[in-house]
Amino acid sequence: LPAARRPGEACIRVLLAGICNTDIEMLKGYASFRGVPGHEFVGRVEECPDARWIGRRVVGEINCGCGDCLDCHAGDSRHCSRRTTLGIAGRDGAFAEYLALPVENLQEVPEGISDQLAVFTEPLAAAYQVLEQVPVTDQMRVAVLGDGKLGLLIVRILSTLGCDLVLIGRHPHKLRHATAWGVETRLAHESDSVSIPPSLTGGYDVVVEATGSARGLAQALNLVRARGTVILKSTVQDRTAIDATRVVVNEIRIVGSRCGRFGPALAGLFEHQHAILPLLSDEFRLESGLEAFDRAQQPGILKVLLRP
Amino acid sequence: LPAARRPGEACIRVLLAGICNTDIEMLKGYASFRGVPGHEFVGRVEECPDARWIGRRVVGEINCGCGDCLDCHAGDSRHCSRRTTLGIAGRDGAFAEYLALPVENLQEVPEGISDQLAVFTEPLAAAYQVLEQVPVTDQMRVAVLGDGKLGLLIVRILSTLGCDLVLIGRHPHKLRHATAWGVETRLAHESDSVSIPPSLTGGYDVVVEATGSARGLAQALNLVRARGTVILKSTVQDRTAIDATRVVVNEIRIVGSRCGRFGPALAGLFEHQHAILPLLSDEFRLESGLEAFDRAQQPGILKVLLRP
Repeated sequence: LPAARRPGEACIRVLLAGICNTDIEMLKGYASFRGVPGHEFVGRVEECPDARWIGRRVVGEINCGCGDCLDCHAGDSRHCSRRTTLGIAGRDGAFAEYLALPVENLQEVPEGISDQLAVFTEPLAAAYQVLEQVPVTDQMRVAVLGDGKLGLLIVRILSTLGCDLVLIGRHPHKLRHATAWGVETRLAHESDSVSIPPSLTGGYDVVVEATGSARGLAQALNLVRARGTVILKSTVQDRTAIDATRVVVNEIRIVGSRCGRFGPALAGLFEHQHAILPLLSDEFRLESGLEAFDRAQQPGILKVLLRP
Repeated sequence: LPAARRPGEACIRVLLAGICNTDIEMLKGYASFRGVPGHEFVGRVEECPDARWIGRRVVGEINCGCGDCLDCHAGDSRHCSRRTTLGIAGRDGAFAEYLALPVENLQEVPEGISDQLAVFTEPLAAAYQVLEQVPVTDQMRVAVLGDGKLGLLIVRILSTLGCDLVLIGRHPHKLRHATAWGVETRLAHESDSVSIPPSLTGGYDVVVEATGSARGLAQALNLVRARGTVILKSTVQDRTAIDATRVVVNEIRIVGSRCGRFGPALAGLFEHQHAILPLLSDEFRLESGLEAFDRAQQPGILKVLLRP
C-alpha cells in the first residue's frame, strides 16, 4: 500500500534501499525513533501533485523542513528545527514498499547510473559535506579514521585532491579498497581502537573521524596538529569522553558533519562508480530484513541492500 | 637571587603577580608541572643582553618557542611543539622574586597603566583571542558561560561589539560586575551547573565556555544553535563527557582557545580600566602564598595578587 503522504509530497515506490550504520545504531536505541527506518534509497515516483514527476526514477534528500523558517526560506532544510527526517525522525523511511517525500526533496537519477549505484547518493553526499566544511588543499596532511562505508567514501573523494592522505582502520578486507585506489593505509589493533602508532600522533592538519565508535573522537584528538581540524561524523548512542584540555591547549577545532547536498553527489557517482560499486557486499529481499541487518554487522561487510 | 636564565633572556624582578584558575588546577595535578607557578605578572628588567631594556617596566608573553620551527619563524611561538611556558611547562614562573624570559617576549608597559592593571595583560589577551578565532558581529546572539575572572573579561570585550549578549554564572557577586556594564545576566543554580532555563537552549550563535569546570562544555552544547560555535576556554584536570552525536547532528563547531597576543591587550587595558580594576579582590605578600591561594578559591573572589 502507498505510504501516507502530506500535501505537496510524492509517493515513491522503493526500488532498492541501503543499510547505514545509523540504522544499526537506531536498533540499539539511538534517536528513539519509532517507525520504518531507512534513508538511503532509489525509487520511482508513482503519485505526485506535480504530474511531471510521475514515472521518474529518483533519489531524495532526507530532511524535510517546515517551509516557514529562515533556514527553509534560504533553501536549506537540513537544520530546520521542526524538520522530519526520512526513517530517522517523524517520518517513515525506505525499508518499505513505498515512501513519501516532498517534491522539492527529489532529484532525478540520470540513466547512466544503476539502481545499485544510486543508493550511494545519500552517503556520498555526506562524504562531500566534509569538503563544504573544511577546505582541503594539496599541501595538507589528512587522516581518515574508520574503514567503514562512510570512511571509504570520504577517503575516495579526498584521494582526488592531492593531499597527503592516510586511512586508519581495523579491517584488512575494508582497507584493501583504499589500497586499490592508491591510498596509504594503517591497520589499527583490534584490541585497542585508540592505539595509534607514535609516529602518526599530532601531525595531521585535518582528521576525519568516521569510526562509528564513541572512542573515535579521542583517537582523532591524538592525531591532529595544534590548530588543526577534526571533522566528526559518527552518531553514536553512548556519551563520549574527551580530554577537553587538549582541545584548549592546542586550540583544536572540532566540526560536526552530517548530511550533504545531492547535486555534487550525483555527479560524483559517475566519476567514482568503479570505486564505489565494489563496496556493495550483499543484497536481501525486504522480508529478510533482520537477516540483512545481521549480515551488515558482520566483520568485513560493507554496504548491504534491501529490495522490496 | 636572580632567576637562572638562558642566552638571549632577560632577568626580571617581579613587581606583582596574579593568581589564575590554571594555577589552582595545577595544584590539583593539572599539567604535571614541577617548578615555580605563576604566569601573570608585571616586573622590571634588571639584567638583559640588550641593555636598552634594563630598568623598563614590562609584561611578557608566556610561551617561549624553540626559534627554529615553522611556527617560530612565523613569529608565533604559542604552538611551537618544543616551547616552554612560564610557570606552566619547563620554565619557572612569576610567583618568585625574579623570573627569566626571552627578550622578544617582553612588552613595555606604558606609564598610564598601574601595576595592578598591568597584571591583567595576560588574561585580557586570552579574552581577545576569542575574537581572533570567531568573528562576532552585532547581528549575533552570544552567551558566555562562567562568571569568573576570564568570563568577565570576555564579556567586557564582547559588550563593546553590539551583539545580543548574556552572561550565565553561579555567583551573584560576580555577575553584578557585568550588570554594572549593562550586560544581561542569568543566575544558574548552584546545585546543578548544567541546568539552563529552557527559553535559552539552542538559540546562541556563539557560546563561550569559561566555567573552569569539566561540565561546562556539555552546558555550552545545550545553548548553541545548529551550525553555531562553542569557544572552549577551560583547562581542567578531569576528562569531559559530551553528547558527540549532538555535535554531529547539529553540525556544531567547537574551537579550543588559549593564549592571545599582548598588543591588543595593552591597548584594551587603557580602554577598559574602570571595568577591570574592580575585579581585583585581594593582595598578599608572596610569603603568604598559600593563604592567597586559599582566598582565591573562596566564593565571590575574583583576582588575587601576590607581591614579592
